[in-house]
Amino acid sequence: MAQPMTDIDAVLSQNLEFYRAFSTRDFGLMDRLWARHAPVTCIHPGWPLISGREEVLRSWRAILRNPSAPSVLCYEERATIYGAVAHVTCEEELDSGTLAAGNLFVQEGGLWRLVHHQATPIQERREPPRPPRGTA
Amino acid sequence: MAQPMTDIDAVLSQNLEFYRAFSTRDFGLMDRLWARHAPVTCIHPGWPLISGREEVLRSWRAILRNPSAPSVLCYEERATIYGAVAHVTCEEELDSGTLAAGNLFVQEGGLWRLVHHQATPIQERREPPRPPRGTA
Repeated sequence: MAQPMTDIDAVLSQNLEFYRAFSTRDFGLMDRLWARHAPVTCIHPGWPLISGREEVLRSWRAILRNPSAPSVLCYEERATIYGAVAHVTCEEELDSGTLAAGNLFVQEGGLWRLVHHQATPIQERREPPRPPRGTA
Repeated sequence: MAQPMTDIDAVLSQNLEFYRAFSTRDFGLMDRLWARHAPVTCIHPGWPLISGREEVLRSWRAILRNPSAPSVLCYEERATIYGAVAHVTCEEELDSGTLAAGNLFVQEGGLWRLVHHQATPIQERREPPRPPRGTA
């Protein structure tokens, strides 16, 4: 019998959905992943803090529409549950280099939804970039 | 009669203590500010993720001991309470420029204690740097 999905599984799944929305430029999915009721914030690399759902989603719309937006893959995800909040750390592999990310989720409507995303560039570029998941 | 201290007040006070420990290089205070039981992580600008209390505090010991470590001031703090977790965003003003920070706190022993600190450089340098708090 299949094991029930734990909170850790569920939040890691939502974290991957976030990177799927990013890499496939799926704004509708990105919109659904962010909390609707809890306050949200976002810190993109090089940008000041963005606060509020409308402003955060506007920033994502601009990023996903930009033809020069980088592709992104997510590695080394780890989730920690603090009560009703989950924090996921991971590395983001972009064309230009690697970033360390922290993604904060809360439960809304039975799903883990994003309330904060923050990505910080790591100076040391890994060479060559890691291969995509699922390849030999 | 004085108003009772709210959770928001209390976590903002702890957030300022964090920057006081940083700017006065007070490792003992820094050590006391981080959670002892909940898992902790830290993303310094340009560094990969650091995980675990011992490793995180080792990184802070190295930063606070480094004579060339920057001085830091904290501005525009805002706290959001998500159940038993508090997230503070703020800007860090360093000699070299401005960073956007996210600091995650949990309740331990009746105090808000850090479980994650992450600072992301903001490209646009404010000129001139803002004056210290409390000056005219």
